[in-house]
Amino acid sequence: MSTKHNLEENLKFEPQFDENGLIPAIAQDARSGQVLMVAYMNREALDVTIQSGYATYFSRSRQKLWKKGEESGHRQKVEQILVDCDQDCLILKVAVDAGQCHVGYQSCFYRALKQSPELPEKSVSSATGKELEFIAKKVYDPREAYKK
Amino acid sequence: MSTKHNLEENLKFEPQFDENGLIPAIAQDARSGQVLMVAYMNREALDVTIQSGYATYFSRSRQKLWKKGEESGHRQKVEQILVDCDQDCLILKVAVDAGQCHVGYQSCFYRALKQSPELPEKSVSSATGKELEFIAKKVYDPREAYKK
Repeated sequence: MSTKHNLEENLKFEPQFDENGLIPAIAQDARSGQVLMVAYMNREALDVTIQSGYATYFSRSRQKLWKKGEESGHRQKVEQILVDCDQDCLILKVAVDAGQCHVGYQSCFYRALKQSPELPEKSVSSATGKELEFIAKKVYDPREAYKK
Repeated sequence: MSTKHNLEENLKFEPQFDENGLIPAIAQDARSGQVLMVAYMNREALDVTIQSGYATYFSRSRQKLWKKGEESGHRQKVEQILVDCDQDCLILKVAVDAGQCHVGYQSCFYRALKQSPELPEKSVSSATGKELEFIAKKVYDPREAYKK
């Protein structure tokens, strides 16, 4: 077991998988810096990613390895893997084509919270009932990419 | 309960907190696109963030609200909040000063997996035993920022 200080300051890679054996991984476009998606890896997915050079995750809904782009073709070529201070989160710097999100957008983050106009002094703002707005346009038709 | 399709395509903000009542939030520099840190929010932290305009997380280790920068001064002014397709992850686009990581770096992601030279054909590469390298320099002295 590593101490907190060791995890932060040393140069040994010790990914801290959570109680489900998973670690979150952020896929970030190595060119533009755009965050494309966040997914999870178990140890095997991380090993396969390192070995193959292409992002492989663990699908929590399907409970199995998920080679990103295997079906859609929208793979992620991994250029660099970063780890954070306490080694419980990864960034994959990836080279990608157009359309990384299965909904049809380049990034999964295609909506933002709508900014409220200045609020009257006594109104209370909270996440409940907030609206979103689209901040991107679709770059491909997922019905084409995922047809069997 | 929202269907998957609704979560993905509609404009109602319905953050999907996990079984611990938390949602991961990526703080990304609104100017440079650099990913600064990943932390978690419960509903209250998200509400406080929206109300105050400054990033507030839920500290899993201390099990309480964590107003980022309250002690160190390195706050995060939130310019935009993005949500992903299945609404189980957030990005905070933030305006920040120098030194967002408590270890002394601008970003918590100050180390990367060391790239191996081309491997002999039969060697197997895995996460186990991998080495890291520093990819950033410290921008402040955390002993100064966090002294009581």
